[in-house]
Amino acid sequence: MPRTAAIIGSGVIGGGWAARFLLNGWNVRIFDPRPDAKGELSPVLTQARCALSSLTDVALPNEGVLSFHTDLEEVVSGVDWIQESVPERLEIKHSVLLSIQAVCPEHAIIGSSTSGFKPSELQEGALRPSQIMVCHPFNPVYLLPLVELVPSPETDPEFVAAAKDILREMGMYPLHVRKEIDAHIADRFLEAVWREALWLVKDGVATTEEIDEAIRMGFGMRWGQMGLFDTYRTAGGEAGMRHFIAQFGPALKWPWTKLMDVPELTDDLVNLISDQSDAQSGHMTISQMLMARDSNLVSMMRALKANNWGAGAILNAHEATLRIGSVLGAQLDDLKDLSNPILTVRRTVPLDWTDYNGHMNEARYLQAFGDATDRLMAMIGCDADYIATGGSYFTAETHIRHVDEVNAGQLIEVKTQILLGEGKKMHLWHEMYSDSRLLATGEHFLLHVSLETRRPCDPSQEILKSLNEISKAHALLPIPDAAGRGVGQRP
Amino acid sequence: MPRTAAIIGSGVIGGGWAARFLLNGWNVRIFDPRPDAKGELSPVLTQARCALSSLTDVALPNEGVLSFHTDLEEVVSGVDWIQESVPERLEIKHSVLLSIQAVCPEHAIIGSSTSGFKPSELQEGALRPSQIMVCHPFNPVYLLPLVELVPSPETDPEFVAAAKDILREMGMYPLHVRKEIDAHIADRFLEAVWREALWLVKDGVATTEEIDEAIRMGFGMRWGQMGLFDTYRTAGGEAGMRHFIAQFGPALKWPWTKLMDVPELTDDLVNLISDQSDAQSGHMTISQMLMARDSNLVSMMRALKANNWGAGAILNAHEATLRIGSVLGAQLDDLKDLSNPILTVRRTVPLDWTDYNGHMNEARYLQAFGDATDRLMAMIGCDADYIATGGSYFTAETHIRHVDEVNAGQLIEVKTQILLGEGKKMHLWHEMYSDSRLLATGEHFLLHVSLETRRPCDPSQEILKSLNEISKAHALLPIPDAAGRGVGQRP
Repeated sequence: MPRTAAIIGSGVIGGGWAARFLLNGWNVRIFDPRPDAKGELSPVLTQARCALSSLTDVALPNEGVLSFHTDLEEVVSGVDWIQESVPERLEIKHSVLLSIQAVCPEHAIIGSSTSGFKPSELQEGALRPSQIMVCHPFNPVYLLPLVELVPSPETDPEFVAAAKDILREMGMYPLHVRKEIDAHIADRFLEAVWREALWLVKDGVATTEEIDEAIRMGFGMRWGQMGLFDTYRTAGGEAGMRHFIAQFGPALKWPWTKLMDVPELTDDLVNLISDQSDAQSGHMTISQMLMARDSNLVSMMRALKANNWGAGAILNAHEATLRIGSVLGAQLDDLKDLSNPILTVRRTVPLDWTDYNGHMNEARYLQAFGDATDRLMAMIGCDADYIATGGSYFTAETHIRHVDEVNAGQLIEVKTQILLGEGKKMHLWHEMYSDSRLLATGEHFLLHVSLETRRPCDPSQEILKSLNEISKAHALLPIPDAAGRGVGQRP
Repeated sequence: MPRTAAIIGSGVIGGGWAARFLLNGWNVRIFDPRPDAKGELSPVLTQARCALSSLTDVALPNEGVLSFHTDLEEVVSGVDWIQESVPERLEIKHSVLLSIQAVCPEHAIIGSSTSGFKPSELQEGALRPSQIMVCHPFNPVYLLPLVELVPSPETDPEFVAAAKDILREMGMYPLHVRKEIDAHIADRFLEAVWREALWLVKDGVATTEEIDEAIRMGFGMRWGQMGLFDTYRTAGGEAGMRHFIAQFGPALKWPWTKLMDVPELTDDLVNLISDQSDAQSGHMTISQMLMARDSNLVSMMRALKANNWGAGAILNAHEATLRIGSVLGAQLDDLKDLSNPILTVRRTVPLDWTDYNGHMNEARYLQAFGDATDRLMAMIGCDADYIATGGSYFTAETHIRHVDEVNAGQLIEVKTQILLGEGKKMHLWHEMYSDSRLLATGEHFLLHVSLETRRPCDPSQEILKSLNEISKAHALLPIPDAAGRGVGQRP
């Protein structure tokens, strides 16, 4: 049964939380007194659906139920998670937390999205401080994995452990901040850079655009995958951190930052920044920029996923949990029914699979069919462990017939029939569907090879046995009309 | 004729410059008195070759000639670019620049890799200050596009313009820093974050690993594609920067950074950081980390390339210049000889095209064949402009025969024969080679469609005319034996 989250305040951050919970199968109840709250949330959800469903290589759970409420008791009744994202003023946070605790379940986690306040400050005057912790996410909340999870000594460790589990289940990365501090960890860096950037603009050294280029063309890309210390560790060569510090430590004494002063946000400075920002990006609407941002983040996270690194490793871990209990994680023994083609792929079309014609690119059809082949191989025992012993299947031939188009974000399924499974030979027939719409067929001839000699050889007895078992069952299925046809050949 | 660069000092940064020049077709002369300079450069070049050739979708020019020298006059004689990357001490820089200018050509650009000194400081006592500017790159220099190009008022603007052109030709992004300042722009941010990070480690708030995760799981990914101001612009919603500043400006007054103080690098602090860094990443050698870093950066830049964004847009611009003058940028009219199949793809296999079998994944064969089809389409007039008018070709069928394997970094070429080009029909035969080794054949049947109705229709008269011209010439070529064959069908 789906669990339920209460979202208190649904602006940019609260709305992102709503999307993250909803698209991971939770029911979501929204409490936000602003008259435009519902209208403001709608484009966020649309965009999150597009981005998140285009991020993973496994389909997400069915979306939960979204509802809007004006009664706080109704919103928090029976929920497992309450996320507070109201304006960043302590007296407002105190009053909202008091109202919530007066009516909410005692077992529910109460997370605050505060970027600055310490949990002990939030807990002042609370009914049950043990329930409250900081869960500070990063915009866009539905895409970026990081959540700074900051308990105070008053927070119940069991609540902290439960919160971490839930965040991980939703593809997030809970960073347990062990010591309370103003602005936690990440925002201290953002603040330091923000102050320095204001000085550079104010002193006419650089425009907002030049500053953005100085970041994204260089160290921004380094930080997106390694952060600060690992980047410096690699710069130090095999001698590592000590060498790096010896080399660059002295710069601390040099006048390289405006550390000793804080710029005043005069009207002139605000205007200067705003005008420069307009000149830089005013040719795009914010909504276009948000689409570009999400598309970039999805592509970068998918790039890191292929390397199982950083945010990409989190994505892989998330997909592994999504596979559990699904037929896509099943072993052959779990498949009671071999009298039909086997479901080998069930996923949405990710953003980076479409091309200038606006639909899934032809090469991605073969990628999906390749994934289907991989899945079937794993099912008969030719998995990563087996491949590590030196055997695998190589595709010798492929014939794809394109029947219909499909777009990013749409669900596709591949069903696989074994036409021949004998000795080193495997002849497969894949059909790709979106609902009941046939998109393409893929006919593939594979050979089992030795990865040492790169020559064909028989697979293990275990694989042969499984292969024969499915082949025998599938031999009773009709042979597809188009099997064996050449390009351009008609029935 | 290739130009020549002199690399003065070939450590991590100078070595990166050497790789950037060399792999973009320049001859490179190295001057570095350290006895291990040659041995140290070798793995950098190996890694750069692997990364850079796996980055682009067009083959790079032939590598230049690398040589090592002990005589400064010999090194700089007749060169177009001199890059100084000696240790970060002003008296050393002065002495090296003086020696260089005593013997170097007056037309050569002298760039300094200094991360901290202003160009006017470097020019003190110089023979010809007009020749000298700061060209501050970012590690790894052969991958990251950013170069902070800082002239002083004494630097000749013509040298600055020439330097920018050369950097762009090599796929870099010269950021013209208009006002001299200590540490230029980017390193002021690095320094601010470094100081704040040292405090967090020293105060026991976070370990080096926790700090890295706080960066790379969140804002690092944002900065890698948008930088600081555009990120905040999008966070402010349609109201933009003014709204954002109104909302978050007040935090400047809060105690969110340790601005007022600089941590002292005591032995205890250095040990604490080094030990934490070992605990975080000591399971990898630095060389393994460097491989991972490059692979991550290549993948992220290729991800942004698909969106033509930031570092990815720079990559696209670089590839466009690589295509100029090559047959891959030629129009049909330039092809004097249609009596042979047409070269439609010439590229290296990028890092993200290989799979668990260690070779190019089957789907990437189709991607390369799809690129070959795109190139042929553009050649006959079905280019981006034509597609924008509402016509395009869709692939209906594909038959791939895999003949041999190919690995990342290897050069591949596709040659294309038109088997039929008539009305809305186009029947293509692609052959993929690595040198003279046949890797695969691709047979493809395409239909011209209306992008509005998504139904087949005839192409423009211009396209038909070009298509017929090539078809007629290719009709004299023998029809490949395997054309028309089905999967598993033998001659």
